[in-house]
Amino acid sequence: MTVSRTVELEGHIIDSGMMGQCFGIVMDLGGSFEVEEFEVGRHKDATTYCRMRVSADTEGDLQTIVHELHQNGANPADPRPASVEPAPDDRVVPAGFYSTTNHPTEVFYRDEWIPVDDIEMDCAVVIEEGADGERSARTKVLNAIREDDLVVVGESGIRVKPPERPRDASGPFGFMQGGVSSERPSESLIREVAEALVETKRDGGNVLVVAGPALIHSGAGDALADLVREGFVDGLSAGNGFATHDIERGLYGTSLGMDMETMEHPRKGHKHHIYTISEVIRAGGIPEAVDAGLIQEGVMYECVRNDVNYVLAGSIRDDGPLPDTITDAVEAQNAIREQAHEADLVLMLSTLLHSVAVGNCLPSTTKTVCVDINPATVTQLLDRGSSQAIGMVTDIGTFVPTLAEKVFEAEAEQ
Amino acid sequence: MTVSRTVELEGHIIDSGMMGQCFGIVMDLGGSFEVEEFEVGRHKDATTYCRMRVSADTEGDLQTIVHELHQNGANPADPRPASVEPAPDDRVVPAGFYSTTNHPTEVFYRDEWIPVDDIEMDCAVVIEEGADGERSARTKVLNAIREDDLVVVGESGIRVKPPERPRDASGPFGFMQGGVSSERPSESLIREVAEALVETKRDGGNVLVVAGPALIHSGAGDALADLVREGFVDGLSAGNGFATHDIERGLYGTSLGMDMETMEHPRKGHKHHIYTISEVIRAGGIPEAVDAGLIQEGVMYECVRNDVNYVLAGSIRDDGPLPDTITDAVEAQNAIREQAHEADLVLMLSTLLHSVAVGNCLPSTTKTVCVDINPATVTQLLDRGSSQAIGMVTDIGTFVPTLAEKVFEAEAEQ
Amino acid sequence: MTVSRTVELEGHIIDSGMMGQCFGIVMDLGGSFEVEEFEVGRHKDATTYCRMRVSADTEGDLQTIVHELHQNGANPADPRPASVEPAPDDRVVPAGFYSTTNHPTEVFYRDEWIPVDDIEMDCAVVIEEGADGERSARTKVLNAIREDDLVVVGESGIRVKPPERPRDASGPFGFMQGGVSSERPSESLIREVAEALVETKRDGGNVLVVAGPALIHSGAGDALADLVREGFVDGLSAGNGFATHDIERGLYGTSLGMDMETMEHPRKGHKHHIYTISEVIRAGGIPEAVDAGLIQEGVMYECVRNDVNYVLAGSIRDDGPLPDTITDAVEAQNAIREQAHEADLVLMLSTLLHSVAVGNCLPSTTKTVCVDINPATVTQLLDRGSSQAIGMVTDIGTFVPTLAEKVFEAEAEQ
Amino acid sequence: MTVSRTVELEGHIIDSGMMGQCFGIVMDLGGSFEVEEFEVGRHKDATTYCRMRVSADTEGDLQTIVHELHQNGANPADPRPASVEPAPDDRVVPAGFYSTTNHPTEVFYRDEWIPVDDIEMDCAVVIEEGADGERSARTKVLNAIREDDLVVVGESGIRVKPPERPRDASGPFGFMQGGVSSERPSESLIREVAEALVETKRDGGNVLVVAGPALIHSGAGDALADLVREGFVDGLSAGNGFATHDIERGLYGTSLGMDMETMEHPRKGHKHHIYTISEVIRAGGIPEAVDAGLIQEGVMYECVRNDVNYVLAGSIRDDGPLPDTITDAVEAQNAIREQAHEADLVLMLSTLLHSVAVGNCLPSTTKTVCVDINPATVTQLLDRGSSQAIGMVTDIGTFVPTLAEKVFEAEAEQ
Repeated sequence: MTVSRTVELEGHIIDSGMMGQCFGIVMDLGGSFEVEEFEVGRHKDATTYCRMRVSADTEGDLQTIVHELHQNGANPADPRPASVEPAPDDRVVPAGFYSTTNHPTEVFYRDEWIPVDDIEMDCAVVIEEGADGERSARTKVLNAIREDDLVVVGESGIRVKPPERPRDASGPFGFMQGGVSSERPSESLIREVAEALVETKRDGGNVLVVAGPALIHSGAGDALADLVREGFVDGLSAGNGFATHDIERGLYGTSLGMDMETMEHPRKGHKHHIYTISEVIRAGGIPEAVDAGLIQEGVMYECVRNDVNYVLAGSIRDDGPLPDTITDAVEAQNAIREQAHEADLVLMLSTLLHSVAVGNCLPSTTKTVCVDINPATVTQLLDRGSSQAIGMVTDIGTFVPTLAEKVFEAEAEQ
Repeated sequence: MTVSRTVELEGHIIDSGMMGQCFGIVMDLGGSFEVEEFEVGRHKDATTYCRMRVSADTEGDLQTIVHELHQNGANPADPRPASVEPAPDDRVVPAGFYSTTNHPTEVFYRDEWIPVDDIEMDCAVVIEEGADGERSARTKVLNAIREDDLVVVGESGIRVKPPERPRDASGPFGFMQGGVSSERPSESLIREVAEALVETKRDGGNVLVVAGPALIHSGAGDALADLVREGFVDGLSAGNGFATHDIERGLYGTSLGMDMETMEHPRKGHKHHIYTISEVIRAGGIPEAVDAGLIQEGVMYECVRNDVNYVLAGSIRDDGPLPDTITDAVEAQNAIREQAHEADLVLMLSTLLHSVAVGNCLPSTTKTVCVDINPATVTQLLDRGSSQAIGMVTDIGTFVPTLAEKVFEAEAEQ
Repeated sequence: MTVSRTVELEGHIIDSGMMGQCFGIVMDLGGSFEVEEFEVGRHKDATTYCRMRVSADTEGDLQTIVHELHQNGANPADPRPASVEPAPDDRVVPAGFYSTTNHPTEVFYRDEWIPVDDIEMDCAVVIEEGADGERSARTKVLNAIREDDLVVVGESGIRVKPPERPRDASGPFGFMQGGVSSERPSESLIREVAEALVETKRDGGNVLVVAGPALIHSGAGDALADLVREGFVDGLSAGNGFATHDIERGLYGTSLGMDMETMEHPRKGHKHHIYTISEVIRAGGIPEAVDAGLIQEGVMYECVRNDVNYVLAGSIRDDGPLPDTITDAVEAQNAIREQAHEADLVLMLSTLLHSVAVGNCLPSTTKTVCVDINPATVTQLLDRGSSQAIGMVTDIGTFVPTLAEKVFEAEAEQ
Repeated sequence: MTVSRTVELEGHIIDSGMMGQCFGIVMDLGGSFEVEEFEVGRHKDATTYCRMRVSADTEGDLQTIVHELHQNGANPADPRPASVEPAPDDRVVPAGFYSTTNHPTEVFYRDEWIPVDDIEMDCAVVIEEGADGERSARTKVLNAIREDDLVVVGESGIRVKPPERPRDASGPFGFMQGGVSSERPSESLIREVAEALVETKRDGGNVLVVAGPALIHSGAGDALADLVREGFVDGLSAGNGFATHDIERGLYGTSLGMDMETMEHPRKGHKHHIYTISEVIRAGGIPEAVDAGLIQEGVMYECVRNDVNYVLAGSIRDDGPLPDTITDAVEAQNAIREQAHEADLVLMLSTLLHSVAVGNCLPSTTKTVCVDINPATVTQLLDRGSSQAIGMVTDIGTFVPTLAEKVFEAEAEQ
């Protein structure tokens, strides 16, 4: 028995690679295809249209193929309405629930295409009906699902729009210019990131910095504090370790017991580290410690003074933690999710854990810069499927100061 | 003004490096020393004794030096009693609190030397008095401190005993044979680890496995499940991702959507991943899902069936999470702490996050094997100061099956 | 002014990604295109044809674009004959010489399409005329160019055929399944490599092993020697260090002064290393030392005994070197080039230097397996543009023994 | 049977770790020791003296132990004269030849202590007698040995002086402050390196730069050229790839076909690369190409213009090569050896191959800075036993410009 289904692709589907990928998916998964209609985009601004019938031996195989095609932007040709089923229980999805990509998505429900709000990977889509009868659709992570939520199942009636290759590929976020390299001219690349940051702020955008403790150890804290003070950072997503090292440095001029300026006494004593947390606990928290004059400089100080929203997510590695740290992982994810949804440009600076957590919540359309000394970290972050992400394998201790310098230059030039 | 203090070292302090380090610490920190008495150990079983007077310009400098000497096993010669101060508040330590090493430690309090229970790095030491008037001392992490706890401050009256070079350095845990290398004969080294594991079990010891999700992706799940089933594992410390991938593999034969046997369909779909969690939630948890026959194989299955204690610690990267996951970082740390304190041999398998969390709770006397494909991970774990740790840079996907094979061989040979 | 040129693509150009890349190249390089004819392959076995006119502002820009299109399989529609110019001097190419890809290539010269022999990246193409008037074309590296060689210049009259996605993607060498991963099931992947090796030998193919000294340090020498003895290796490409460590191990049971079996005495003494070389020099070389009974086991021993061709290429890191080492880099490259051209399957085992040297001489159609513990090494090797290359990030010390085991199993099964 | 031998250690042997290591060596190798005399250095400027009798079961074991003790600075107490034997053939050493460390060494021959010239690891020591009857001793690598050279055998009559912990550990080259870290404050550390460089030049010292092609790709070529032009570099040790990329960049504004300024056109075409080499060959070499005006900028240009000695060592990866490249590995090693022996400060910049080659020729007293983005490279270089080496895991593309800036600042401040 052969079952089949017709899907469509439209847009710059050849140079964006979508069409090649879709052909490949069908072959990889053991199906076959028949192109029924094809209209090539004859020049760079013309779009291409392809309608093809996909066949497989079983309905199950066909569904797998259609699911994968979907993830890559091939949508069913005959938009049958999306099916929905009520969630059988809190935090339980119906069998065959539709699992989202991070690309812009619409659902065809009751004769209308509804955009899915807060699009994010690996979520369910829930249809909601307002008091006024207006319908909306939004993503819900598994633990937000409530019994009887109307969850979309199957692939019907869903339209996904992966990002296309922009017609003009200049700037650091040009399509597929991403990739990672430790062999590209570092200073030129940092200048381009600085320009993107300045431009984002000039356009009223939101800049989210995700930072790990290595940023402080490597001596880049002052430069990041400068960027916060001068208004180039709208949100900070970090952990208990980052905040503690930053505050400890202000209190004792050390990070992990090392004198930052002279690099003398590189002892391992964590005593200052624990005592710093203890004193902040005594003050009642970071803002209170700033108000009380205990914390007088650093990244956290500038965040408090300049009303920059920060989230400190807890981890099982933490000492303390600081009272400001959200120790519950689900609660912390929710706080991170909000930051991620607001961001227009995300700088991920030498932290795998926090970067993955933020990256999980980002749509594929958010510009992202990943910086780490470890190429495996950068590769893993870029793999998450954002076409707007660039990676840089470099030393955070020279990257942030150079970035700050070039940001202030770019700002001054305008 | 010069202030000074007399400290003593005793034991195999030359070949264990302690004496050299102590001389170096004094010089690095700008102090001076005068050896007052010195009795060299004339042969390998004789211990060495050194008493020296350490001087510095200020009391603060001297305290810093004495603190560092302490961490390396030089104890004050004239055991003045330890000072204690009540904790000013919950989760707040007195200024100058004594911050622990992970070496065996004793406190001189009210004319007796009291051993510090549950020794662990970066903790405070709290003196407790039982109903019977008996005094004990134990470590407390910062968030366990309660107002008015009697916290040891300063360095007086504290004796630290770093591990010495064993007189017989055979076996993989010989002193300083540790280190990391990707250039040592892999199969010989795995055989030695297998022998250590079998020996630990034969001696009635407790084996704790700390495992990351890469273990499942790399195809090593079956071999670990075998080790659990055959009774070589007493505890499992992992995360939500590890458990989900393991269960998903049993349910669908996939991990992250990839068929484990044929490696076909290496698609990125996380759909099975989310659905696996959803179904376990519906069942009520992992043990319930095992009982209900939903989970029929794998590492978690064997843990449930064989009453192996497991801790799944949550993280901000998690999907779901599974109901068995402890989402609060502090609560999860406490569960991990218990596992760590019971362990006699710890295998840290391809997870930095969980290994650091466990490592933080281990005394320097617990045997530890760290395995990761990334040398930076292994180095970071070994740096935590256990003299009983060995690292191996290898592929977890070949390590675990080879280990299981050699464990069963070693077992059979007895 | 606008200049333009018409190019054609034909084959499975959509799913192989060629067409998307060609559109992208034109846009990236500031040109424009007009698709003049397009016939889509309507099912998976049908080929696609595309003819497009590419335009640019200047002849220079157009040439750059056409050059890049060429590298990706877009050939000029109107095969004007290839232009040739005599080389102005030994080791000097004419301006605008055609620089080869590693894909199968033909040259249109004097009204016939001539295949380019020994295709290899970054070479010039030289036309030669035999005594019988028959013309042939072959690649020459720069230092092989002689004055008055007829060197092809420009892009006209050259047809490049990049590998297409195979219609059946099973097996480890399926198109683009390559990539690198440390998170794929290691043992399954090794089994697939073993099967490919056995199949290559069964089909009468040539297997080349490229090996670094880490193979010996990690204890994999015996397993490789077994593979050589049993006839699974036709050539060995290595360096002075590899051969010396292998021979030293036979002579002293050590590699770099470490006892391989017990791992005791891991001292750094290179004394045995130097003395090994000295004794082989005294014997007159490796085959002479085997004949004299000095070398009685190991990889080099088996190579000599089983007439397996080996090339030991010198490097500035070498001790000695052994008399068998080719110290001149150009001469060594020529010997490597011969090995590479004969190979049907190449295993690159934990050496970046030798693997790059071999890889430089391989056409894109040769199957290649790159194994290293360092992901950066594997990535760099796969980047060289072979579509038939797979990479594996694993421990050579467990990989080779496991491979040998699975090869012998696969052989036995037939 | 027990055989024994008396050895002595003298100096700052406790804090330098030598004494602990010597005790450990005896135990590791199954021997025993009896301390016969011990005079501890009672304060930081007093030296310690230790005489001990070392025993083992067999003469062979004893020799192994004494050899290892030797490498760590324990010298035989009763300086029997060194034994010498004539080399049996060219490039052949007598059995039991003494293999050097890289520490300052003296030989007791015919009643006098003769310093060994050009000390370097893994060499033989050859005694030579001048026409005037004056005796000297020097290292010879294996391939420099000539028949009948008087080669020192055994351990008798040899005195090795490993570097001691300096009494004042300030500056980046403080004893054991070396180590590697990607978590130290980068800019402070670069400033310290800059100060060491300026100080070396002020003291009339020789600065050798060892550089890999990544330096050019990462955009650091201009900064290095500035350092050469301003007289801070006395020698350059690199390869054909480095020089070609540097020259190509001057000729075409590209490196590996990438526009360095705008980073556009990141195509893989090596055409410019090959053509650059071809044109330099046509000119007759780099100095000729500079004279002819073909090369007008860059590192190689500044070397030629400022009479900075450069060595380009060939490798089997090379294209071309340039006529200036020494293709024979032995000849290239000899050229590198000369550079290494003259150097007072060596900067190893992002090349493992060339850094190892240079490092092999350096005595342990030469200051060395190793910079690479890959921590494994830095670790491997530091492992070579220089106590004066520091490593930095950072991005060469930001390191060199920052270094140049800080060098010029430090210079200006004087």
